[in-house]
Amino acid sequence: MLLAASAALALALPASAQEEPKGAPAPSEIVAAALKADWVAIAAEDLLVMTLAPEADGSPRTVVIQLMPAPFSQGWVHNIRLFARSGWYDGISVNRVQDNYVTQWGDPNYDNPEATGTPKPLPEGLRVMGEAEYTVTDIPPGIKDVVTKIFEKIEADQPGQPAPLNNFEPGLVSVADFPFSFAASFYKGFPFAWHLEQHFQSIASPTHCYGMVGVGRNYSPDTGSGAELYTVIGHAPRHLDRNIALVGRVIEGMEHLSSLPRGSGALGFYTAEEAAKRTPILSVRVASDLPASEQPTFEYLSTESTTFATYAEAIANRRDPFFIVPAGGADICNIRVPVRRVEE
Amino acid sequence: MLLAASAALALALPASAQEEPKGAPAPSEIVAAALKADWVAIAAEDLLVMTLAPEADGSPRTVVIQLMPAPFSQGWVHNIRLFARSGWYDGISVNRVQDNYVTQWGDPNYDNPEATGTPKPLPEGLRVMGEAEYTVTDIPPGIKDVVTKIFEKIEADQPGQPAPLNNFEPGLVSVADFPFSFAASFYKGFPFAWHLEQHFQSIASPTHCYGMVGVGRNYSPDTGSGAELYTVIGHAPRHLDRNIALVGRVIEGMEHLSSLPRGSGALGFYTAEEAAKRTPILSVRVASDLPASEQPTFEYLSTESTTFATYAEAIANRRDPFFIVPAGGADICNIRVPVRRVEE
Repeated sequence: MLLAASAALALALPASAQEEPKGAPAPSEIVAAALKADWVAIAAEDLLVMTLAPEADGSPRTVVIQLMPAPFSQGWVHNIRLFARSGWYDGISVNRVQDNYVTQWGDPNYDNPEATGTPKPLPEGLRVMGEAEYTVTDIPPGIKDVVTKIFEKIEADQPGQPAPLNNFEPGLVSVADFPFSFAASFYKGFPFAWHLEQHFQSIASPTHCYGMVGVGRNYSPDTGSGAELYTVIGHAPRHLDRNIALVGRVIEGMEHLSSLPRGSGALGFYTAEEAAKRTPILSVRVASDLPASEQPTFEYLSTESTTFATYAEAIANRRDPFFIVPAGGADICNIRVPVRRVEE
Repeated sequence: MLLAASAALALALPASAQEEPKGAPAPSEIVAAALKADWVAIAAEDLLVMTLAPEADGSPRTVVIQLMPAPFSQGWVHNIRLFARSGWYDGISVNRVQDNYVTQWGDPNYDNPEATGTPKPLPEGLRVMGEAEYTVTDIPPGIKDVVTKIFEKIEADQPGQPAPLNNFEPGLVSVADFPFSFAASFYKGFPFAWHLEQHFQSIASPTHCYGMVGVGRNYSPDTGSGAELYTVIGHAPRHLDRNIALVGRVIEGMEHLSSLPRGSGALGFYTAEEAAKRTPILSVRVASDLPASEQPTFEYLSTESTTFATYAEAIANRRDPFFIVPAGGADICNIRVPVRRVEE
């Protein structure tokens, strides 16, 4: 088999006459060699299993979403579990697919100029969040440690000069995020940006990377309930950071959302004439509510592990055979946190 | 109609009871208000018209690609016109769709472990390029002007401290590109990154943004002929910059390539069992070779215009009604050069 894992990001396959040259391991090989202890189980309470209507040929379509860990976006995460547990999501649909931007799902009769019916009533017990909750100011110890150590490193490296930084020490992986924030890092498997505010106070916000899931909203001060969700299907729309709540990310089945036909209406909504293109969502369940035998099990590569630091560094400086010039850096959305399904 | 252009990037539609608040113009509104003189006609010689097999329901699928302007990648651009004019591309197919990465087309029997036939012979007259041609060292006057002015601005702003910079003066639009290069800017409508080499010499390379088109290749020192092309369908894989030739970008019909079913083989190739998913490419023509009545006409928003500078600044600092916190910056791939079809 010519397709070694090291070719995982190559753009062409090696010709049969051409042997793969030797080189450093590719990021995918580093992940494949991770120890069992490097992987962290994702709680079933943090997994949403979304079942779409099957494809035309009958193939099933299941999407699994990992919900955001505390302290980020917990009000919306609460609501999303409530929507799922009340069955409210069952029977909604994908109503919008805008190329290089988002796929969005919700009640097709809510906030849709193409609606033909009446919106379904929302369940009771929903929380209402303020815009301040798009960010975390009360930085938890884990993030604070990262931030403090980055500061110490900056002071040591370049006295008096706050500068963007790529750092690949275990537990301290962070990358320059200058167009958008001071630096970006990871917390419990999720990417976040770290904004330096006045008086060197800092706030953290999750980042809009490919596959991240957020909450549709109306104009400010509305912050959305969680009834309407979207996922990023293109280049990271980082201008949405701090403007909208991120609640998780797709960890399996992303292709079922990214390869849907684009809507031809404004903002990529399907027009009334295209109503047949709206993909029905049959059900959304919190995995912990499923029978034990049906609960999927996933793990993410600990973002505090040595393996993750090695992986991130290898992404920033590709030395595997296909590459001739390492980039020398990576943006936060290039460093995708590895997730794997654990088969029984 | 509730869908004002200013809502063009909003994630939800305004509820009917909620009036759109007043605010600064959105990037799309700035483009819509551009003067005729701000638009630059794209030569028909620089347009490729690629006709895919129709969709299952009979809908036509046409993709238009704008080829890269000199001095970038001209050897490959030469080859691509040659492939198109010899009819070589007619009858090839889309063989690979890897989620959040690339859609790739070429001869399904070339470099494909799933091949069942023999590769078609290449046309005569193809050029062979060296890896040095991934970048431009002999920076043309247009780029050099930008670079010089950025340097002057840096010196004026922060003496002695080369620093990443966002600049939105007309003709000088550039953004910090720190994870990947010193700065990124635009040349004749295309994004490029500007790498600072030793002794303050600089080299420029086109950037791998969403929709950019590149040349598949084998391991170094192979640089690809242009027989196999791909387009980016996910977050910018900037680590490919300077490692592979970029030859243009998709300016119409991108959704026909980005919404294709993902391949389940290694690297997103369609397996032999999935051969029916390979989308046939019926023909690829240089637009100037088409009958005059069939030649599409496109214009791009001059990247030297005041309107473009205003547009780029508005992307970096969204002040239109949906936004509550402007990002304060944008990466080069967030600032998509507007292109429009000119109807007769």
